[in-house]
Formats: sequence, C-alpha cells, structure tokens
Amino acid sequence: MKKRIITISREFGSGGRTIGKMVAQRLGFRFFDRDLVKEVASQTGISEELVEKEGQYAGNKNWLSYLLSFSGGPKVRNGMRVNDFVWVMQSKVIQDLAAQEACVIVGRGSDFVLRDRKDCLRIFIHASQEFREDRVVQLYGEREASAEDRILDKDRRRKLFYKKYTGWDWGMAKNYHMTLDSGELGLETCADIITGLVKQEA
Amino acid sequence: MKKRIITISREFGSGGRTIGKMVAQRLGFRFFDRDLVKEVASQTGISEELVEKEGQYAGNKNWLSYLLSFSGGPKVRNGMRVNDFVWVMQSKVIQDLAAQEACVIVGRGSDFVLRDRKDCLRIFIHASQEFREDRVVQLYGEREASAEDRILDKDRRRKLFYKKYTGWDWGMAKNYHMTLDSGELGLETCADIITGLVKQEA
Repeated sequence: MKKRIITISREFGSGGRTIGKMVAQRLGFRFFDRDLVKEVASQTGISEELVEKEGQYAGNKNWLSYLLSFSGGPKVRNGMRVNDFVWVMQSKVIQDLAAQEACVIVGRGSDFVLRDRKDCLRIFIHASQEFREDRVVQLYGEREASAEDRILDKDRRRKLFYKKYTGWDWGMAKNYHMTLDSGELGLETCADIITGLVKQEA
Repeated sequence: MKKRIITISREFGSGGRTIGKMVAQRLGFRFFDRDLVKEVASQTGISEELVEKEGQYAGNKNWLSYLLSFSGGPKVRNGMRVNDFVWVMQSKVIQDLAAQEACVIVGRGSDFVLRDRKDCLRIFIHASQEFREDRVVQLYGEREASAEDRILDKDRRRKLFYKKYTGWDWGMAKNYHMTLDSGELGLETCADIITGLVKQEA
C-alpha cells in the first residue's frame, strides 16, 4: 500500500533526524520535528521545553518509580503526572497530523502511535558508538560530560521512555519495516533507500 | 567499502532464505545454505543431520543447562560437547569460505562470525507472525504441531543458540547493517534493495 507517513526512530547521534529531513524534502512531504513539540505545547499549555523533555525521555530519577508512574513531574490534570499527560496529548497530535497530510515524523513514539495505519512506513536509524560520538561532538560541540556519556544517557532514557509507554523493546528489528546503520551505509544512501521505497510503492 | 559477502539472518518462515538466493543469483555470488552444512559435516565427520540441528538451534532441553554447556549431545572431542564442536568447526568453515569468494551465507551465526570483515554486509529478515504462518503452511504443509507452535519453537531455539554462542540478542537492529520486514515490503523488493545496495557500493 502507498505510504504517505514515514516515522523515523533513531539513536542519538545517528543522523536519523537529518535523514528524515532529506526524505521529506525529496518526497515533498511535511517534516515534523520541532513543529510537533510546538503543537503539543500549544494544545496543552505546557512549555515547549517540558514537552521536548517529557515527550521523549524518561527522567533521571529511579527507573522503577518512572515505569510505575510514581515520578515524572508534578500532577497536572485529574491526578495525571505531567509525563503521562504529555504522552496522551502528543499521541493525539501525532494521530491528527498523520490523518491530515503526507509527512515524516521524527521520534516521540510516533512509530507506536501510528502502528495500525497501513499507510505508515516505520524506520529505525542506528550507528556504531564511535560514529555517533564523532557526530555528536561535530554537531553539538564538546561539553562537560563526554560524548560517550551523553549518548549512553540519552539511549538509556529513550529506551526507558519507550518501554513505559509502548511496552516494546527499543531497537528491536521486528518493530520496524526497515532499520538502517547510517554509519555503515552513509546518510545519503539511507535517504535514497527510504525515498526509493516510498516512490516504488506509490 | 565494496561488499562481497552478504549474511542473511532470518526468522523462520520470513522468506529470508529465498531472498538470499535471489540476491546471490542477481549478483552472481555463490549461495551457501545446504552446502555449508555439507562442508561442515565433511570436515568433522559428524552427520549432516546433526550439523543442521546443532549449528543453528538450541536443543529442546532445559535452557539454562544449554547455555551453561551441560547439555548439547555427547562429548566428541577433548571433552567438548557436539554442539560446541559444531559451532567451532562451522565458524572456521564460514571464515574460510568468506575468504575465498563472493557469497551469500544464510544463518548459522555467520553475521557474528564475520563481524570484523569490512567487506561483509549483514542483513536480518523478519515478518509478522501471520505472514510467516501462512508461508510455513504453504511451503512445508500442515503438520501435527500448528504453524504457530512451530514458529514459536524455532524462534525460541534460534534465539537461545544465538545468545549462547554470540552473547548478542537475536533480532536487535544494532547487530545488522539493514533489517527488512519481508511481509510488509515483499520478497522481491527486499532482494531489490539488497542487490541495489551492493551494486552501488561496488
């Protein structure tokens, strides 16, 4: 079936966001990354900063209390914690956007949220630790924490977030139609393969 | 770097073997599946039937005793169990074959054995339970055990075999350069994508 929505899940530093942007440009699809955060913030009245964080990462606190919803910011609606509320509203926004127009959506559990849509192609981008460390330093510069620690921390918190809200294990091949090693294949080739696949099925 | 060896790991019933064969034909590469079993049998003096089984699947016994090498057939060489001996010899045969000629190798931990070769492209093929059940019945017919049970049993034993000998989790995207959902994309398209990638890098 013709694919008009592409979700790109990715490891931090793998270039998944860049690949998503390239694919959107080549196909003439709308690209949702920062705009999605803005939309959720606007619909909830929660700051973009908080949506950015809670809609994609587990907090730094104890993982068990996070999974069991004992932590995750203050309660905001009907006794719901801010992270749960962001997840519910973000899922709603993702579903609405996908129903409206052909688009590429990066991260934020969009693969899971849109799992039942037959017109959705689910992609996962990953790369070696070495490739990602080089890329993170090149893109975001050096910080107090090493690139290695920043990657490990983001991976851990994305994985936990994913487990909590989807029940799935992050990075398992079976959750995606295609996964690509961007370090090995190159960002351009990854974008070529995805674009070619969507055009072929069109 | 130019890829001259392609390893295809696959879920039972996903069509990975068929895709591997198509890719080998299109690229003019040698295809190793049954021939690999024969070669290992010939070099070890162990029957093809036992190599076929022990070189890919955990036994049906207790998983813990399998992982700890307390089970896995009789001891055959220097106190080594038959499954461990098959693994060692099979790995050696895979390395020798890969050094000799351009080829496609299906399963048998070849992705792990050849992980350090820069000229090796590692692929994993998977599909939904439903797609695989239909395919298993279509290809191998009905048996006493349901297609669902046969798939679950083979998956479980491949996963355990993989964990024991590689330490890796079977089906994790990060262990492969590319993973493809053959049920969603179709076998032809999977073969097209892999072939195109190898030709492009050539």
